[in-house]
Amino acid sequence: MSDRDPIPLSEQLRRGNLFAEACPSREVLRHVTSRWGVLVLMALQDGTLRFSDLRRKVAGVSEKMLAQTLQGLEADGFVLRRAYPVVPPHVDYSLTPLGVEVAVRVAGLADWIETNLPRILEARPEADAVSA
Amino acid sequence: MSDRDPIPLSEQLRRGNLFAEACPSREVLRHVTSRWGVLVLMALQDGTLRFSDLRRKVAGVSEKMLAQTLQGLEADGFVLRRAYPVVPPHVDYSLTPLGVEVAVRVAGLADWIETNLPRILEARPEADAVSA
Repeated sequence: MSDRDPIPLSEQLRRGNLFAEACPSREVLRHVTSRWGVLVLMALQDGTLRFSDLRRKVAGVSEKMLAQTLQGLEADGFVLRRAYPVVPPHVDYSLTPLGVEVAVRVAGLADWIETNLPRILEARPEADAVSA
Repeated sequence: MSDRDPIPLSEQLRRGNLFAEACPSREVLRHVTSRWGVLVLMALQDGTLRFSDLRRKVAGVSEKMLAQTLQGLEADGFVLRRAYPVVPPHVDYSLTPLGVEVAVRVAGLADWIETNLPRILEARPEADAVSA
């Protein structure tokens, strides 16, 4: 499954290589797996949301960090930002088809963590993260 | 998947909830999706590695960051650190069964990004990341 070492050059040019320091795939990975990127992608899986709704859903994110996260995901073509010329201004965000695809993978990881959290907490040497 | 005895915690901790600000699943997600966490999990999918081998494989990581990343993954029970009482000292790292499971999900996301990198770069408004 993971025989990653001998990747031919032609293959490297056709696809990204996260183990290569200069590969742009690393930047994409950073956006997608950033502290808030994961949660924004998951929140948008349910449909289009306005900035304020997103911020409420992704509890704990600051306005600045949410804006920055959305900009990164927009730059990678995962999120579509739509501004409507109305008063007061109306801006909303949704996943692009590419964003839907990546969100599925992100949600797969997130779901696994949520489901297996009890096992993970049990496996911790010090269980103080659990105790109040 | 793993229906173990429920830990005597509040209802919401029986299963993690990444959208809840105080849920410990957020910390686990941070370790697993950290800049280097992803690459370390993927590197260890191929088998046990020593620190220096890991560092070579995960190009660009500093000693300090690699040590910190491994500590986080060890604390969550994903990585097993083994120190052999020999001279010179021999320490190696491998995935635990829990680590194997999470690495599969992480690799699913990483593979998608690597495979779809050309589409992502094309989708970028400014395609300067592509040009040399």
